[in-house]
Amino acid sequence: MDFIRIDFIIIITFCIKGNIMTSFELFNHISEELDQVEEQLINNVQSDLSILENASTHLVKAGGKRLRPAFALLSAKIFSPSVQDVIPLATALELIHMASLVHDDVIDNSSLRRGRETVKSAWGNRMSIYAGNFVFARAILLAESYHRSDIVDVLADASMRICEGEIQQMVSCYDTQQGLKDYLHRIERKTALLIAVSCQLGAMVMNAETREITALKRYGYYLGMAFQITDDILDFTASEEVLGKPVGSDIRQGVITLPSIYAIKFDQRGQELKTLLASPESCAERAEEIIDIIISSDGIEYAYQVTKKYADLAIRQLQFLPDVSVRKALADMACFISGRDF
Amino acid sequence: MDFIRIDFIIIITFCIKGNIMTSFELFNHISEELDQVEEQLINNVQSDLSILENASTHLVKAGGKRLRPAFALLSAKIFSPSVQDVIPLATALELIHMASLVHDDVIDNSSLRRGRETVKSAWGNRMSIYAGNFVFARAILLAESYHRSDIVDVLADASMRICEGEIQQMVSCYDTQQGLKDYLHRIERKTALLIAVSCQLGAMVMNAETREITALKRYGYYLGMAFQITDDILDFTASEEVLGKPVGSDIRQGVITLPSIYAIKFDQRGQELKTLLASPESCAERAEEIIDIIISSDGIEYAYQVTKKYADLAIRQLQFLPDVSVRKALADMACFISGRDF
Repeated sequence: MDFIRIDFIIIITFCIKGNIMTSFELFNHISEELDQVEEQLINNVQSDLSILENASTHLVKAGGKRLRPAFALLSAKIFSPSVQDVIPLATALELIHMASLVHDDVIDNSSLRRGRETVKSAWGNRMSIYAGNFVFARAILLAESYHRSDIVDVLADASMRICEGEIQQMVSCYDTQQGLKDYLHRIERKTALLIAVSCQLGAMVMNAETREITALKRYGYYLGMAFQITDDILDFTASEEVLGKPVGSDIRQGVITLPSIYAIKFDQRGQELKTLLASPESCAERAEEIIDIIISSDGIEYAYQVTKKYADLAIRQLQFLPDVSVRKALADMACFISGRDF
Repeated sequence: MDFIRIDFIIIITFCIKGNIMTSFELFNHISEELDQVEEQLINNVQSDLSILENASTHLVKAGGKRLRPAFALLSAKIFSPSVQDVIPLATALELIHMASLVHDDVIDNSSLRRGRETVKSAWGNRMSIYAGNFVFARAILLAESYHRSDIVDVLADASMRICEGEIQQMVSCYDTQQGLKDYLHRIERKTALLIAVSCQLGAMVMNAETREITALKRYGYYLGMAFQITDDILDFTASEEVLGKPVGSDIRQGVITLPSIYAIKFDQRGQELKTLLASPESCAERAEEIIDIIISSDGIEYAYQVTKKYADLAIRQLQFLPDVSVRKALADMACFISGRDF
């Protein structure tokens, strides 16, 4: 069991590092387009107000894996090698993600995000709220440039659901009664939805057929679920250097994720863990102890199995798509996230 | 001079009270539609997540003057007695305004807004941020229901400018170097723009001609400027009961408005005032003293004159519109806000 866990930790550690991910050539199909998205991100946070532009540019330059643009571009590439039309959408998707991150910074009191100072720590809470709002409104303007109601509809609706997911996370802190279903529902809104929408909209911009759009939306949904569970596992197992944020930050903030839910229910120290996780004080002060209990339970392995199941479901959706080389890249992404083939 | 000021304070006191305003029958033309907007506001903040729905409903029920819906409806009524089509837009405009208020609450540490507890004081900072984002995304969805890119474009662009105005206000706190131009530029973005857009979009939904849309947009802009200056005057002169928020809250937070800018420059105690306003400590602890200096200067009268000028400019735009009875109501609004005829 230990062997599997260590092996998995190494795999996932590779997984989360954006640069290593791209060095695995998963994004080779879209590297030029991703460079263009990077350029567009900078162009789209310009403002007459230099303090706002600086804060937003800081946000862009903090980097990130650009997963949402990548999924939109890869999904579009299923249908045509030329996906220039998807650049504004891909940019908008990353801006929406960035807006949620910068608002999250206000809330979490995080001082580090992706290894750099956050907008909040550099400019204060107020700037973070406004920079997030500014960047979100810009995303809507970009999406509107397609003159297609269906695109803005999907994005605005997803944005509402993301808010709901954030609130669900907030109200479920220190709630040790929550079960698997609560957790899955929460990460669905918090993460999977925007990845699903990225795939869906990439196909929609290319005017794909309804069944293909649905398949890609589902692929994105399942992959997003796998991605978030992996992310939650890494909060226990990765190093701060790999993670780009402090290890155990979920526990410290009372965010109860899948490994904890499993360990509470099935580990022999479950009751002890439950008591610790229900208390903000012990979460803050005894985080290492809590993490040790979870690491030594089967919670991490269980979460890994769930990740793998979602990755399988994602891959299964690909059968409804044309058999082009980029379809293989989408399958590789799912394998990569679930750590299956490495 | 004292007589004029007292007279003006009474007028403005009437002005700001939403209920009294409607009892002046300014909104008679659109009272039924405003009731529908009220209903739609409640309908549009529904969520599966009861805590989010409660927070958003609380926000709706806190009331407000519904000025932006009123301006959209009145502008539309210039062109047809039947303005049912404008209800979703009017609702979206109020939701955008509400989103900016709820985010403002986080920032200002206000515990009272319109005489009721704020979402923040009832549910905490995090809920305020998410409720604001949720309500804003809903507004975009509503605006999208027209399937018209120009409408969403105008709203998203205005939302970006509103953020800029909020940031300008933030960075100009305690800045006693700012002049009239800085102030006007800031309130233009913070307030006038959304009122301008309300009038503009009301006309656009009714497919008015370009010159009519422009006239209404300008009317809204000038009226919005007059409205914000009035609001800034009232922060010195009105009672907490009338204002629905603590008197002198601008001063306490270092927000320097037109009466202060005038008094710093022209009053004999200008230098003393400048020193007081530049210090967060004296703004917080010696607010009454600061308010007394400004009240006894000509700053209030000067601001009133500027309000009057903007109201005149607003009224002048009305000549480009059909001479229907609702046009008179728009003129009355401007007179009312500048306190001219009362």
